[in-house]
Formats: sequence, structure tokens, C-alpha cells
Amino acid sequence: MERIDDLHRDGLKIFQDPALFCFGVDAVLLTGFVKAKPGEKLLDLGTGNGVIPILLSAKTEAELLVGLEINAESAALARKSIALNKLEGKVRVDEGDIKNISAYYKLSEFDVVTANPPYIAENSGLLNERAAVSAARHELLCSLEDVIKAAARVLKPGGRFYMIHRPQRLTDILSLLRQYKVEPKFLRFIQPTAKQAPTMIIVEAVKGGKPALKIPAPIVIYNDDRSYTDEVRGIYYD
Amino acid sequence: MERIDDLHRDGLKIFQDPALFCFGVDAVLLTGFVKAKPGEKLLDLGTGNGVIPILLSAKTEAELLVGLEINAESAALARKSIALNKLEGKVRVDEGDIKNISAYYKLSEFDVVTANPPYIAENSGLLNERAAVSAARHELLCSLEDVIKAAARVLKPGGRFYMIHRPQRLTDILSLLRQYKVEPKFLRFIQPTAKQAPTMIIVEAVKGGKPALKIPAPIVIYNDDRSYTDEVRGIYYD
Repeated sequence: MERIDDLHRDGLKIFQDPALFCFGVDAVLLTGFVKAKPGEKLLDLGTGNGVIPILLSAKTEAELLVGLEINAESAALARKSIALNKLEGKVRVDEGDIKNISAYYKLSEFDVVTANPPYIAENSGLLNERAAVSAARHELLCSLEDVIKAAARVLKPGGRFYMIHRPQRLTDILSLLRQYKVEPKFLRFIQPTAKQAPTMIIVEAVKGGKPALKIPAPIVIYNDDRSYTDEVRGIYYD
Repeated sequence: MERIDDLHRDGLKIFQDPALFCFGVDAVLLTGFVKAKPGEKLLDLGTGNGVIPILLSAKTEAELLVGLEINAESAALARKSIALNKLEGKVRVDEGDIKNISAYYKLSEFDVVTANPPYIAENSGLLNERAAVSAARHELLCSLEDVIKAAARVLKPGGRFYMIHRPQRLTDILSLLRQYKVEPKFLRFIQPTAKQAPTMIIVEAVKGGKPALKIPAPIVIYNDDRSYTDEVRGIYYD
């Protein structure tokens, strides 16, 4: 059953359907780190219900924000949200397969690429009975390598790639980015509390960039009293 | 001018000479994470004045701890410390070049390899006028790849590699470890305080291991009042 949720940003709203996949804290966190300048074109790989390009239309000055989604129902839902928010001139959702990206976009077409891909390596973990939910969580329809390869192809030289993923995949992520010549530049670890292990990582990488990785202090989500820290409150509500 | 310092562990002492290179907090921190079981053989690559094998002779149950050092004066100083501590039956320092490691040790000869290598990529940063100090800080005599390649060669299948290094080299480290089939298993970030960016990383990798990286909460060195945290106090004094 689809519903309409508030995005707490410029009055933006979004259609969600739990039978497909609802966005999580990770998609919202990722949008807090994406920079896009006036005139830039952005592509979100595996956009689901379009939460990332819709939020980034308010949070950045990108001229065009495109989401690519393989699931037809998710893409349709994203288009309903784009219409609901009157974003048709700025946000677009294309239906298609990341593995076939050269059929849809030109080489070096985008300044920025974002991705909140499935975290779980293929053939591991329990699958959800709903195909769209499983595909969003598990590497069934595309692997981490497919995502990075696609980003490398459509990014301009000097273009930025932003991805949120899991710490246990860090070796895969950094090795594949380097292999595809999208050099990791910033790495942020996200911890539930100051004393807990990180549960998410956000990486910013630059197409053709020189090796020089910065790792700032980790982002902590909750204070000891379980309220949001100022940094995370800023990502959600500022 | 050489001097004798106390290692605050089982009465161990060490000769140091600032004209060569004095060990730092990083070498001591690394020893807090190295595990070696009874009967195991350990090699420390670029051992300098031998602080790592000397400390690990008290902190682990390794049967034999070998340090490999290219600088003759540093190796001589390490041997003086070994004699001073009456560790001749257990700790040994060999003079030699990491890049030539197959001339000294057999394939798969060691259960554990440790390294606190130079942090600064060749041709970057200011060089210290003293050759031994520069070689300990800069990749003049061996690169990060030389160190990882050497470890991969002398480690047994299933053997562990422990290294302390800088966060800005993380992509190099994880990519090279995977390339040489020494799979990263644990990664610890070390922060001066809870709110500061990490300044060091410790990696544990397993020769021929399966991909599965664990990243626990960062190690914080100082409390807000600049006293050592309990975790670091434990590494130094327990």
C-alpha cells in the first residue's frame, strides 16, 4: 500500500510503498554530503522511489537530477513524487539497468553520481520474499563492481562519486574505486554512538583524481540520551 | 648520543639514539594488537632499534621474534638492547633489505609479521638531514608495496600481518593487501580525542583469508582532560 511521507525539507513529500522499498536513514545521510554546483548534472544509480534526487533538488544547486531505476513500479512511484513536488523540470527518473548504462547516457555525461546500493553480497543473508525489497538490499541485480563501473563510465574527469555503504565492504570499495580510476578522496565513518563501531561509511571519490584520502572524525548519530547529535540533526532538518 | 629508556613492561629497557630514530607511540600502540601464540615465529620488518620484537617478547607467547633492519647502526643498537634484556634465546635482529627478503627467509617461514613502516610516500615531504631518520619516515629504502610484498612472501597460509600506518594511505594499504592475497580482517582507527580525526590506523590481515573486514569503534588516546584513556593506558602499562 503506498503512502505519502514528509521529507522535512522545503515542504517536499514522497510516495513510498513498503511492498517495494522504503528509503532509510542511509539515503538521507548520504544527501548531507553531496555537493553539486549550479549548472551541474547529477545521476543517482538505483534510485528506488527517487528520494535522493528529490532531496538533492532542494539541498544542492544542481541543474538536472536524474535517477536510474530498474524496477518499473519503483520508477513509476518516483515519477508520482516528482509530479507531486512539481519538480518535472529538474528531476527525472529513467527506467533501466545499471549494467547497461552506456545505452542510456554518454561517456562523461554527469558531474556528480550518487549511489545507495544494495549492501549485502550476492548469495549471502536471507532474502526478503518481495523481489524489489530483496533487490534493494542484496546484490542480485547489480554488484558493487557494476555500480562503480557505471559511475566511472558516466562521470566527467574531475566529477564526484558519492556512495553510502557498509564498513565490512571497505576493502572491496576502495580497491574497486582505484581499479576504475575513481580515486577515494573523503571517507566518513558513521557510528550509532561515540563508543560503538561504525555501521555505515560514506565515500567521496573523484574521477581521475590523485591519491590523497582524508578521513575526518566519525559522524555520531545519537547522543548518550538517544537524541540526535547536532551534526545529524543538521543533515535531517537544516 | 645513545641512551637507555625504560619500556614500562617487565623491567625491559631499550637503547635509543636520536641520531638514528627513536620509537614512537605508534610502535607501542601496534604491540597492543599483535597476537602470537606459544610456538609461533614472528618477524618485524624494518625493526629499527628493535622496540617491537623486544616489547612483544613480554606481551606475547611467541617462541622466536626476529627483527629485520637495513641500517647497520640501528641493528647494532637493537642487539645491545637484546643483550641488556637477556633475550638472546628469543629475540634476534638480522641486518638486511626488505626488498631482498627471499635471500634471508623461506617462503611461509613466519606465523606473524609486524611492520611500522615509513609513512610518507617517496618524493613528498621534507627530508631529515640524518639518513636513518629519513629512511624511517619516508619511503626511501622501501615502499609500502615492498613491505606488503615481503610480508606476503614469508607468511604462512593463515598467518597474520599487523601494521600501523596513516589514514591517508588507506586506499593504498587495502588495495595492496588484497593484491598480494593478505586479506584485511580488522581495521582500527586511532584518534587523539573522541572528536578529532584519526591520525593512525592499525590493520590486521590474514594470508589467504576470505574477505570479511571488521571495523570496531575507534581507539581514542586522550580523555578530555588530556589523561590517557583506559584502553591506551592498558596498552602502555598492562
